[in-house]
Amino acid sequence: MARPIRIGRLVQMPSAGGRWTVAGWVRSLRVSGDVAFIVLNDGSTLAGLQLVLDRSRLPLFEEVCRIGTGAALRATGELVDSPAAGQRFELRVTELVQVGDAPADYPLQKKRHSFEYLRGIAHLRPRTTTYGAVFRLRSRLAQAIHRFFEERDFLWLHAPIITASDCEGAGELFRVTTLPPNGAPRNDGGEIDFSRDFFGRKTGLTVSGQLEAELFAQAFGNVYTFGPTFRAENSNTPRHAAEFWMIEPEMAFADLADVASLAEEFVRFLCRFALDSCPEEMTFFDRQIEPGLLARVRAVAEADFARMEYDEAIRHLERAPVSFQFPVQWGLDLQTEHERYLTETVVGGPLFVLNYPREIKAFYMRRNDDGRTVAAMDLLVPKVGEIIGGSQREERLDRLTERMAELEMDQAALWWYLDSRRWGSTPHAGFGLGFERLLMYLSGMENIRDVIPFPRTPRHAEF
Amino acid sequence: MARPIRIGRLVQMPSAGGRWTVAGWVRSLRVSGDVAFIVLNDGSTLAGLQLVLDRSRLPLFEEVCRIGTGAALRATGELVDSPAAGQRFELRVTELVQVGDAPADYPLQKKRHSFEYLRGIAHLRPRTTTYGAVFRLRSRLAQAIHRFFEERDFLWLHAPIITASDCEGAGELFRVTTLPPNGAPRNDGGEIDFSRDFFGRKTGLTVSGQLEAELFAQAFGNVYTFGPTFRAENSNTPRHAAEFWMIEPEMAFADLADVASLAEEFVRFLCRFALDSCPEEMTFFDRQIEPGLLARVRAVAEADFARMEYDEAIRHLERAPVSFQFPVQWGLDLQTEHERYLTETVVGGPLFVLNYPREIKAFYMRRNDDGRTVAAMDLLVPKVGEIIGGSQREERLDRLTERMAELEMDQAALWWYLDSRRWGSTPHAGFGLGFERLLMYLSGMENIRDVIPFPRTPRHAEF
Repeated sequence: MARPIRIGRLVQMPSAGGRWTVAGWVRSLRVSGDVAFIVLNDGSTLAGLQLVLDRSRLPLFEEVCRIGTGAALRATGELVDSPAAGQRFELRVTELVQVGDAPADYPLQKKRHSFEYLRGIAHLRPRTTTYGAVFRLRSRLAQAIHRFFEERDFLWLHAPIITASDCEGAGELFRVTTLPPNGAPRNDGGEIDFSRDFFGRKTGLTVSGQLEAELFAQAFGNVYTFGPTFRAENSNTPRHAAEFWMIEPEMAFADLADVASLAEEFVRFLCRFALDSCPEEMTFFDRQIEPGLLARVRAVAEADFARMEYDEAIRHLERAPVSFQFPVQWGLDLQTEHERYLTETVVGGPLFVLNYPREIKAFYMRRNDDGRTVAAMDLLVPKVGEIIGGSQREERLDRLTERMAELEMDQAALWWYLDSRRWGSTPHAGFGLGFERLLMYLSGMENIRDVIPFPRTPRHAEF
Repeated sequence: MARPIRIGRLVQMPSAGGRWTVAGWVRSLRVSGDVAFIVLNDGSTLAGLQLVLDRSRLPLFEEVCRIGTGAALRATGELVDSPAAGQRFELRVTELVQVGDAPADYPLQKKRHSFEYLRGIAHLRPRTTTYGAVFRLRSRLAQAIHRFFEERDFLWLHAPIITASDCEGAGELFRVTTLPPNGAPRNDGGEIDFSRDFFGRKTGLTVSGQLEAELFAQAFGNVYTFGPTFRAENSNTPRHAAEFWMIEPEMAFADLADVASLAEEFVRFLCRFALDSCPEEMTFFDRQIEPGLLARVRAVAEADFARMEYDEAIRHLERAPVSFQFPVQWGLDLQTEHERYLTETVVGGPLFVLNYPREIKAFYMRRNDDGRTVAAMDLLVPKVGEIIGGSQREERLDRLTERMAELEMDQAALWWYLDSRRWGSTPHAGFGLGFERLLMYLSGMENIRDVIPFPRTPRHAEF
């Protein structure tokens, strides 16, 4: 079968002319006298292509007029300049084949559907304009993320998904097992005998690839992970999913300032990329999803990101002429309302908050000389607050084991992590960015279920 | 901290000269009179960089001579032409900082270690020459795979990892659960009550993203997945892992010939890429891992792939002057020995075998008009046999449900898959390539545990 040209390529031709074959799905059909107009979309572009079908050229014109929304067509014709507004070309069709029909019970008839309704038909919603735009952005952005790191000689690490360690305490783990659910073997003490499970121990789904990325950074210098991560938290919020993708770069011979610079470059690159490489989608989001989105994203793309110590952030919040819902006090973590006040009102742009109290941060973060803070950073952006969290890692074996002892962590289970501080240890730092949070930020979509192809949330694992 | 230049970049400078800072780990140290030579590696390149340290220039020369293998250094000096063979440049060091030391118990002293020993220290083995080369190849190839599809306008789909369906019967599933292992709730019948599990049903780890890719192909035309997949099979072989990465493209408006063309283009591209973009690593593999590897990979990169019907393949095998271990008969699947005979002896190069008996293939493959075969294909290559499996999918709703009924499959559970044949169905086709199998093919490494950063196999989930 001769491969059809993608509509996204065809509409970018320098000029009309030529005979082309396209294939896609009917978005709409309108008949006006002896001419039928079909908008055909093949998923490569938002607007699709208008097919013009003339009774005098097509023998089965009556049948054409009965083609249903959603039907699959293959059409051949001449590319001509379009007299209609908003489109450069149209295809004057001389051959048409209905490849697959779409009876009238097709759930995506031409009317507005709520996002909630469309979530129930996640297998069909990619065929809509909104989700088409979302998933094209998702794909292109994901590919651009690889290009960003590739151009900077970062090694892509495929961190393991199945893990025996929940070392970060970053969240609840899903258990992974092959033990029979209603007849698991027990040991002499009557406990489940995990030594007889597939991996000979209790295992779960990873919450982060960071610890493994640290190991690889100690061999390759600059590395990153980009893969699925999991949280078994029963949170039914628009911002939480049980399965999501994370990007976690890690750099050896680097400190907190280095990794903040990388994060700044990365976020600016992503905003710039979305604006430059997905203009059709971004304009659509600005018009249909969140008015003002283009200006907001452009502002981040062009900003110099500010930097502020946590100490200073607290002082700003203490004297803010605003009443916050959550308390402000040195030693407490910042809530979204605080973060938004800092980035939107105090700074008016993206802001790194640096060096947080050690008591509220993870065990692996590097202790600062003041004894009370660690070299942590959060990147805050207008509208959402925190979008990236990172830190310099504790590379000194004695400090690290001291902190783990304080927190009563099982050091034997992390023998390999400690080993990386035993031989050839280096100052190193990294950050984590939730890919879906970024997509929501760039598209204006407000529910994480609407930027994941087939979202997994409490009680939902369909498709 | 000023960021050091990566050694991989430095050694590609057009000429010597300039003052540079590098940072990495000591591979070896040799003292000759008043000069010390250190080979420093930062993971960006196989060979590393020779540092030349002169007693007259470095105040702490005695200390330098005691630096251990594996120590982390930062060195600044002048890039000069090297008089030594096999390297263009060396760095005449004027400043040296030991960033992290490596006591003498460092497990990677300069001697040969077995791959088996190194598997036990998977957190350190990326610092060796062999694994450094393997994981650089893995990363670059993975990035190149995205570029291949991006340049061809394929949409990258993040298929879900957690799934409620094991529709392919492709393998045993790991169960994913948050039910307490020793106190799961039971229903009135005494069975485990999965409706009270996290997702309200029994869930597992995906064995393939194909079915979801088919849904997305019906919206975006050309899509692919590239992510982790899982098999809970208790196979302790050099070719099986419980967790591995798969690439699964899917094209709408495409038939078996189209997807075979894509597979051919893809495999040639990957071979070409490895040769052109990882010459240092490929030369190393050819010299140290599998003599003749370069010639073997080059032959595939330059071959026109042959095509042969399954019927014809059987006839070749029946009259082969070879005694096979497994029986040859129309209706039986091909074993590796058969595949290798076909590709190595009959054809002498890559070979697609097309249109297999339907009884040995999956339910979703398209039934051919002969009634006894389906539009399946396997790509066979010398040395390993099958490296890619694919098919045209059954797009006709009535044929598909008929086949599922024959196989007594639960059609209600796959309502969404059947829906994709109900409205706007198109002929479509795709294939799957196991990323690790490809890596083994390109590197000559013979155990899958040696091409995965932290492999998961029966009883092994460390790190």
